Parts: sequence; structure tokens; C-alpha cells
Amino acid sequence: MKAAILFGSKSDAQTMKKAADVFKELGVSHDAYVVSAHRSPELLAEILGALEAGGTEVIIAGAGLAAHLPGVIAGQTLIPVIGVPLGGSGGLGGLDALLSIVQMPKQIPVAAVGIDNAANAAYLACEILAVKYPELKKSLINFRKKMKEDLAKEGGKAEL
Amino acid sequence: MKAAILFGSKSDAQTMKKAADVFKELGVSHDAYVVSAHRSPELLAEILGALEAGGTEVIIAGAGLAAHLPGVIAGQTLIPVIGVPLGGSGGLGGLDALLSIVQMPKQIPVAAVGIDNAANAAYLACEILAVKYPELKKSLINFRKKMKEDLAKEGGKAEL
Amino acid sequence: MKAAILFGSKSDAQTMKKAADVFKELGVSHDAYVVSAHRSPELLAEILGALEAGGTEVIIAGAGLAAHLPGVIAGQTLIPVIGVPLGGSGGLGGLDALLSIVQMPKQIPVAAVGIDNAANAAYLACEILAVKYPELKKSLINFRKKMKEDLAKEGGKAEL
Amino acid sequence: MKAAILFGSKSDAQTMKKAADVFKELGVSHDAYVVSAHRSPELLAEILGALEAGGTEVIIAGAGLAAHLPGVIAGQTLIPVIGVPLGGSGGLGGLDALLSIVQMPKQIPVAAVGIDNAANAAYLACEILAVKYPELKKSLINFRKKMKEDLAKEGGKAEL
Amino acid sequence: MKAAILFGSKSDAQTMKKAADVFKELGVSHDAYVVSAHRSPELLAEILGALEAGGTEVIIAGAGLAAHLPGVIAGQTLIPVIGVPLGGSGGLGGLDALLSIVQMPKQIPVAAVGIDNAANAAYLACEILAVKYPELKKSLINFRKKMKEDLAKEGGKAEL
Amino acid sequence: MKAAILFGSKSDAQTMKKAADVFKELGVSHDAYVVSAHRSPELLAEILGALEAGGTEVIIAGAGLAAHLPGVIAGQTLIPVIGVPLGGSGGLGGLDALLSIVQMPKQIPVAAVGIDNAANAAYLACEILAVKYPELKKSLINFRKKMKEDLAKEGGKAEL
Amino acid sequence: MKAAILFGSKSDAQTMKKAADVFKELGVSHDAYVVSAHRSPELLAEILGALEAGGTEVIIAGAGLAAHLPGVIAGQTLIPVIGVPLGGSGGLGGLDALLSIVQMPKQIPVAAVGIDNAANAAYLACEILAVKYPELKKSLINFRKKMKEDLAKEGGKAEL
Amino acid sequence: MKAAILFGSKSDAQTMKKAADVFKELGVSHDAYVVSAHRSPELLAEILGALEAGGTEVIIAGAGLAAHLPGVIAGQTLIPVIGVPLGGSGGLGGLDALLSIVQMPKQIPVAAVGIDNAANAAYLACEILAVKYPELKKSLINFRKKMKEDLAKEGGKAEL
Repeated sequence: MKAAILFGSKSDAQTMKKAADVFKELGVSHDAYVVSAHRSPELLAEILGALEAGGTEVIIAGAGLAAHLPGVIAGQTLIPVIGVPLGGSGGLGGLDALLSIVQMPKQIPVAAVGIDNAANAAYLACEILAVKYPELKKSLINFRKKMKEDLAKEGGKAEL
Repeated sequence: MKAAILFGSKSDAQTMKKAADVFKELGVSHDAYVVSAHRSPELLAEILGALEAGGTEVIIAGAGLAAHLPGVIAGQTLIPVIGVPLGGSGGLGGLDALLSIVQMPKQIPVAAVGIDNAANAAYLACEILAVKYPELKKSLINFRKKMKEDLAKEGGKAEL
Repeated sequence: MKAAILFGSKSDAQTMKKAADVFKELGVSHDAYVVSAHRSPELLAEILGALEAGGTEVIIAGAGLAAHLPGVIAGQTLIPVIGVPLGGSGGLGGLDALLSIVQMPKQIPVAAVGIDNAANAAYLACEILAVKYPELKKSLINFRKKMKEDLAKEGGKAEL
Repeated sequence: MKAAILFGSKSDAQTMKKAADVFKELGVSHDAYVVSAHRSPELLAEILGALEAGGTEVIIAGAGLAAHLPGVIAGQTLIPVIGVPLGGSGGLGGLDALLSIVQMPKQIPVAAVGIDNAANAAYLACEILAVKYPELKKSLINFRKKMKEDLAKEGGKAEL
Repeated sequence: MKAAILFGSKSDAQTMKKAADVFKELGVSHDAYVVSAHRSPELLAEILGALEAGGTEVIIAGAGLAAHLPGVIAGQTLIPVIGVPLGGSGGLGGLDALLSIVQMPKQIPVAAVGIDNAANAAYLACEILAVKYPELKKSLINFRKKMKEDLAKEGGKAEL
Repeated sequence: MKAAILFGSKSDAQTMKKAADVFKELGVSHDAYVVSAHRSPELLAEILGALEAGGTEVIIAGAGLAAHLPGVIAGQTLIPVIGVPLGGSGGLGGLDALLSIVQMPKQIPVAAVGIDNAANAAYLACEILAVKYPELKKSLINFRKKMKEDLAKEGGKAEL
Repeated sequence: MKAAILFGSKSDAQTMKKAADVFKELGVSHDAYVVSAHRSPELLAEILGALEAGGTEVIIAGAGLAAHLPGVIAGQTLIPVIGVPLGGSGGLGGLDALLSIVQMPKQIPVAAVGIDNAANAAYLACEILAVKYPELKKSLINFRKKMKEDLAKEGGKAEL
Repeated sequence: MKAAILFGSKSDAQTMKKAADVFKELGVSHDAYVVSAHRSPELLAEILGALEAGGTEVIIAGAGLAAHLPGVIAGQTLIPVIGVPLGGSGGLGGLDALLSIVQMPKQIPVAAVGIDNAANAAYLACEILAVKYPELKKSLINFRKKMKEDLAKEGGKAEL
């Protein structure tokens, strides 16, 4: 049960860390890589080869601006690729990254999550892995059950 | 190996059929349902219960406008949910549906694909199932290999 | 004469408080709840049941990002639902929340107000209640009369 | 139990007729007016005066482009105003009309529904009137019950 | 030679002051008013009556969000109305105000300038007045000549 | 009393003709020119020289896409320039043309009207000329009076 | 003096042909290829290798939706890459393709031209080649001179 | 081997300096000018004349808002023009500048790079010059080789 987290620039690490935190919380082994689809395509190909060989089963890729990383990865592997649009690096609030990630051509899908929502990328990765791994499914069920119990315990009532 | 395709209105059937076509091509058993997150929430809960009980492993949900269906499903199950924003029913080209699907809150992920791109939803579903099912992985590998061979055979040269 | 204010996350409380302030100003009894359409759908159903039973006559629901809360509520009740798009939680300025709230499918309406404009949601709620309650109508008439008198007293003249 | 439907141009009649159809279906008496906030403000003031005097309890106002009609009405009455953004008259798909209607300043609320969604404006108007009129509430309950039964009868299963 | 500057809220004064500064620089007499199209329509009508009676020849109106003020004024007078979309009061950067001002229906024009660009509104107002007043035309010619001379003197060369 | 209508391409003639129609209706003498800010800057300078010499008092300039024509004209003359964003020539519905026209830098104003709304450009031009020419002001007053009378005669009542 | 035109799908040929037409008109030798950044990355690498070896000096790449082709090429070569956003294949009018092409990360530039504007891509390519080839510069000068003369001959005057 | 950097306002210098830094790094001689398409068109014409005469072979032009500078330059010269949309001066994040630069009419191309991405404008300029100058091509090859080696040395592995 192995996941990988790739992103294009060291400045994205803080946002992408939220994906790693979810993996830790749910017990999913994972590696992380800084690699660019454009500035280091050879390194990317190399890393993807190693991930395939090492049995990685789901890939999270975060990128900003004309965010090609998730799509370029999806063109080189059949491991499911989850794209995280990063909004921090431009004035368009991440709309450019979102469209660059989600509007993929037919036959080469990327699974987009919300802008800067690396945590959800990891939750989605866990749901994907849980199709195969019943113990992870159980962890997810417990996680969600606890989430609901906590919310129910508070009863919803708020002070304004 | 079971998938389900849900969508909010009969008028979406033609677009969502492309997902079914991919499942047929790659040998994935699937059912389809017309069900609305808002107009028939009880029916939706019932269908989701049946899907869980019947062993469905991935869900594709297509919706237009304020496209809540994928997110509402994701709140009721831990089966991975792939959302297809449908652009046909409004003047905003599907941007409303895309944002309504992809910008999910933390902990309840939806995997968004491109606007009206139901085919990619099914390819993504197959990649997800292929994590568990080696025979589907082989089909995907063959499919992509053939796709590349066909493109390579033509050599790329075009007449303009 | 009873209103309810629901919102998806404690971090929205400060914005939604403006609705409560208007209700206090105009003498409308109201309760507030933190509840998520996706993370706690059962709690939401329970709260809505209690609101129906307790005679709540108008509901304000605030949500950000893919803001499903107002629409999901509207699918479960015939009490009028006013949606407040919250812009604070993303880089798109609330456009995602606005479209997710306002572009509802036929037969399940939500009344959208402006981004982060919880005060207007409460004024609208009061106008709705005032259809039934003449004393609230009088309060609204006095409120607006005073507003206009104050503006007229200043005569409009400004120094630049 | 009286509603009014106002819109800015005869060319909007076909879209706004969907509101009238809903009112007919649910037994709500209503009148319709073509009147412009800009080209005939005096006529608008006159009509609003007559509506107030005649006991109109909810107003639907449809407008396109810089859609000021709903907001201008809301500044002149405390009857709840529902705004329908009309997308047909411009290349921006109704986004201009939506923003012009929904982004009202504090204290003068308009209830916006989806672009061209005049039917939902009328359903919302009925929900508002039903706060006061129990017989309309019953009609709405029956209407929604039947809607759900019809959907449930079909069982959701679709052919793709 | 008289101009007027109207705006919807005291919080807009700082931006609108730039229009007054240009008028002072070019010697155009002007008055300023805080008045709302929605919250004080009667006061607005009164002010417009006084402006017509007093010989005002051009009106600048600044507004944010669903910026109706310029259009509502244009519906009540034939004095040219220049609209300044104010971006400060919302998360959409003023796009809502711009569309609400510029997309006016046929026959009731508003002259829109750039978002928050109250200075340009005043320069435009001066160009309009200069059609009639040759001495203002001369001031404008001198102003622009000096602007160009200053830029030419520096010769354009920059250090980076 | 002279106006000019400039536009960038013969294919814009049908839209810009609406401006000429308004001028004819209101008795304003006008000339029209097809000239491009980019493809024929020398011709443009020549035409502007002739317009200045011939006493043109207001200029309407229509352009699509990166619509520079109105702004470039405004940089070369102090005659008021009204810009008409043309939406026909691209997939963005004229938003590109609108922003390219309205977001002018300080000191060089353009008066933008709505997308494809050449008629309003001419009405605005007439209001500008009417500051100087009382007889045109009278024509405008009559025109608007008649418009209101026609609308009032119909009484507003509509059949839906 | 050699150029290449690449595009992602045969359905783009009609739009991209406009680039070839300009090259023919100005005497620039060129080849064209249908090749996908995602579906045939190996073929793309092969073609780029051949282009480098064969002395291609400028590359035009057209793509729609999440238009990665120009950027992926730019990551693999130092030949200048001109990107043409294609708007035909989606409901967003090409805004997705434009942002996916133009918002490239630092160090890997792409030269974007307007949506569907393949002709301009070729004119730009010619200007780039003309830096090196004086005879092409002469052709461009003649071309533009003739364009201006034709426009000047007509004198600009239009009938509306 | 000569480049020029033009921009509309001194306040843009900090962003445009990144282009100069790249030129310094790669040994490209360059001059910089502050000049406005609208406020100093004569100065612009003069500078362009001098650049043509002095053998400038590529021009970078940065501008914000309705960013006409690159397009106006492209209409007056056949030297390749690279446009840098500047996002700092408005609330639309630079989308206005991007569209104003990239959506040029047929026959007058501008090469747009990403918003505020002056560095990429200079890299693109170097690629253009390198078509003619083999020594610059070598510098670019070395630069990119080093970039890739640095990234490869780190091996991609990241800590989250």
C-alpha cells in the first residue's frame, strides 16, 4: 500500500504537507518528490519508472499556474493520478491551475480536487487504495464515524 | 469488479453514455441510475445502500449547474466518487458545475474530471479498479499500447 | 415567528453573526447550528426535523467553496431557504460558492444573497416573515423609514 | 394570496412564462407587467404602488445584462423580491445579470435564483407564501411528494 | 461649467476624491453627494432635481458590488452619466460593479471607466465639458502637452 | 454638431450601424471610417487629424478582441471617445474587448458602453453633444418623453 | 529557414491550416504533425528529435482544453515555441487553453497568441525567423506595406 | 545581439527588472525605457525608430490593465514583440492585461507570456535571438543543462 506525492517547486511543500499528514494519520506509506514536468522531464520519467517498479499504487501531483505536472504524469503511467491545483503562485486564485489540471483530453484522465486542497487529495487516494485494502477501508470507516460522532456530540448548536 | 454511473436528469444520458461505452470496451460491469441529490434524496440513499451492499467499487456521478450530486454521494459513502461537470444545461459553459463539484470541503473528496468528459471519468474509474484487479490493469496497458501504436504508425505527419 | 441560521464550519461564525444581529435588532427569535451537508448529513437531517417540528419558518444557510448546504437543505424541507455564499475560504472570491448556491435545478429553489452578505439574508428573512406577521412588517417599515430619514437629514452633501 | 411577475422587456416573456406556469399549477393568483427600471421608472413606481395597495405579497422580477430591476424594486418596497437573471440577451451567459442582481448592498436584499430559472423563482415564491397560507403549504407538500413518488416508481435504473 | 460627484457610501469617499482632485486641478466647479440608489431613492430624485435646476452638466457616479447608482441616475436625467466601478467592497475585484454599470439596456447609456479609476471619470467629464467650453479645452490641451513634455524630457530611458 | 464612428473591420459594420441609426433618428451629422489601430496607425492619425480639423465633437470607436482602437484614439485627441466592445469575433463573449477598452490608464479616459451596444454609444454621444446644443437636448427630451408615454400607454400589463 | 506546426488532434487541422497558409504566402518551408503530449509522448519526443536534427528554427503548437502541448514541447527543446489556444473543443471559449498555455513556470517560456489565432502564430514565427533571414524581413516589410497601402487606398471612409 | 525592455510606468520597474536580470545572466545587451502607448505616443514612435535604427532584434513590453503597449508597438515595427501582462495594478489579477495583450487582431502578432512573468519574456527573447546567434544558443543549452543537473543531483526526494 504505497502512495507518492509529487510537486513542482519547493515553495509548494507547505501546502502539499497536508496530504502527507493525512497519509500518516491513516497509515499509508508514502514518498515525496520535487520534480518539474518542464524543467526536469528526464528526472520525472526516472522517478515514475521507480514508482512503477516499486509498486506505488496512487500518485498525488500538485502544481500551480499552467499546472501540467499531473497531466504529464498521467500520460506516462496508468497509476491513478490525483491533481492538486495550487493557487498561491498567481493572481487568478488558482483558476488557471484548476483548468490546466482538470480539462484533460479524452483517454488520459486526471482526478482533480479543490484548489490547494492537498488533504482531500490524500483522502481520495485512501479511498482508492481502500478498494483493494480492507484494513484501510476499516480505518476510513472509523475515521468518518468518529468525525460524525464528534460533530453529533456537539449537537450542532452554535452561539452567534 | 463493479462500477455505477449516476446522473441527475434523463437529458444527461447522452453525455454519460460515453462512460458506459468505455466500461463496455474494457469489460467493467456497471449499472446506471437517474437520481437527483435534491429531488429524490431518499431514493439516492436507497440506491447508495444497494450499491454498497452489492459491492460497487467506484461511482461516477454527472451533474450540471449547481452540481451537488457527486459531493452529496461522497458524504454518504467511502466508495471513490468521480464527478463529471455537465456543461449543457446553462450559459456558463459548465464552469458552475465544475466549481460545484471540485471545490469540496476538507475530508469529503470528489475526483473531478473535465467538463462533459464522461469518457475520462470511466478511464479514471478503470485505473482505480486496476489497482486491485491485475486483469483490468492488463487491459488498460493493452489499450494504451494500441493507442500509442496507432498514433505512431501514422507517424504524426499531417497535411494542412 | 422563528428563524434558523445554519453554517458549515465554526470559522464562518463571524460572518454569519451579522444575520443574528439583524434578527436581534428586529426582534426575530432564532437559533444557530454548525452542521455540514457532507460531513454530518445525519445530524443535518435531525436538525431539520427538529426545525420543522418546532415551527421554524425560514432558514438561512451559509457555506463556502462548493457550497452545497443551502441546496441540500432545500431538498429536504419546504421552509424557504436563503443561501449566503461565503468568500473567505478560497482564492476565487466566493464565485464558486455563489454559483454552487444559486444555480439550483428546477423545483428545488434557494434564495441567494450576495457574497458574505449575511445581514441581507436576515433582512430578506424578515421580509418573508413579514408577509405573515404584521407587527414585523411594521418594524421593517419603521426601520426603513428611519434609515431614509437619517440619510435625508444629512442631505447627501459630502466633502471630498 | 397574490404574486406579481415583472420583467424588463417583451422579449423576456417566454422565459418568465415558466413562473406563471408554476403559479397556475399551484393555484397562486398572479399578475404580470413589462416595465423597465430605467426606461419607465415612473410607471414602475405606479405599478409598485398598485401592488402594495392591492395586497401583493411576493414579487418576481426578471432582467438581463446590468439587471437593475429587482434591486430597484427592492429599494421601493418591503414585499420580498425574487430576482431572475436572464442570460439570453448577451454573450456573458447571464453572469452579468446574476452579479447585478445578487450583489445588493446591505439592507436592501434581493433573493436571486439561477440564470433563466423563472420556474424556481415561482417555487420559491410559493414557499414564501406558504409560510402564511397552510393550504398552499399542503399543495407544495403534495407536489413534492408526488415528484418523489414518480422518481421512486421508476426506481432510478437507467439504460445507457 | 458644473459637475457633480455622487457615490453610494461614505467608505467610497477616498477613491472618489481622486475625481474631485482632477476637477480642482482643471478648474471645474463641482459638488459631491453620498446617496444610495436603493436606500434613499427619494433623496436621489431630490438631488437630481436640484442638479438639473442648478445647471449641472455632467455627473460622475461611483458604486460597488451590484452598482446600480449610475444606471438609476441615467434613467432619471439626460445629463451624461459617468460610472466608476468600485472594487474595494467585495472579493470579485470589481468585476461585479463593472458589469452592473456598463451592461446597460438600450436607450439608457452610462459611460463606464475603469475599476476604481475615479480620476479618469473626471478627465472624461472634462473632455465632455470641453466640447462646450473652449477655455477648458485649452486647459486640457495644456495639461496633456505638459504631460507629454515631462515624459519626453526624461527621454524614456530607464534603469533596471 | 458632428460625430464620427470608427471601427476596426468591415465585419463590424452591421453592429456599428446601430449607432448611425440613432444619429439619423436624432439628427446628428456623422461620418464613419474603417480603420485599424494596429494595421493602419498612419491612416488613423490622418483621419483623426481630419476629424479635429473638421470640428468633430465626439468619437465612437468599436473594436473586438484586444480592442485597442478606442484607447489609441484617446491617446491622440481630447475629443471624448466612446468605446464599444464587440463580442462577435471571439469565444469570450466580448469580455476581452470590454476589459481592453474600459481599463485605461490614468489620464487617458475612454467611455465604455455595453458589449455590442453601439446604439447606446450613440445615445451617450447625443447626451454629450446636448450639453452644448440645446436643440439636441430638446430632441432627447422629446425622445425620452415619447418612450415613457408609449410604455405608460400600454400600462405595463403583460400576458404570460 | 524551417518551421513546424504541431497540434493535438486531427479535428484541429482546419484552424491550424491558417498558419500553413501564412507560411505559404511568405515562403517559409514547414512541416505539420498531429501528435499528443499525453497520448503519444514518445512519438512527440521522436518528432522533436527529428525537428532539432533537421534544423527547424521555430515551432507552432496548437492545443485545446488543458492545452499542455506547447509547454511540454518547450520543456524538451530550446527552439522558440509559439502556442495557439484552441477554443473549439469546450464551453469555456478557449480560456482554459489560453491559461494552460500562457501561465508557464519560470525558465520554460511559451509565446502565446490569441485564441484560435493560428495565422498570428505564423506571422510571429516569420518575425522571429526574420531576425536571422533578411530576405524574409523584406517579405514581411512588403507584406505590411501592401496591407497599409490597401487600407489607405480605401481611405477609411465607410457606409453605415 | 540587442534587446529592449519597454514598460508603461515606473511602478512596473521592479517586475520588469527580472527580464533585465535574465539578459545579464545570459549576456544579452539591452536597454530599458519607460514609455506609454497612450500618454506619450510620439515618444514611443521616436524610441521605436531609434531601436530599429540601432539594430534591436527583439522587444519586451510590459503593461497592466488595458495593456495596449505591446500591441501598439507590434503595429509599428516588425521586430518580434513579447508582451508581459502586469497584474499588480488592478483587482482582476492581471486577466485584463493578459487578454488585452494576447487577443491581437490578425496580422499583428504579440507573443504573450504569463502574468508578471518578465523572466520568461527574457528567456523567450533569448531563444528567439539564439535562432540567429549560435553562441547564445550554446549559453542557453548550458543554462538548461545545468538547471537539469542541479535538479537531478537533488534526486527529487523531498521531506514533507
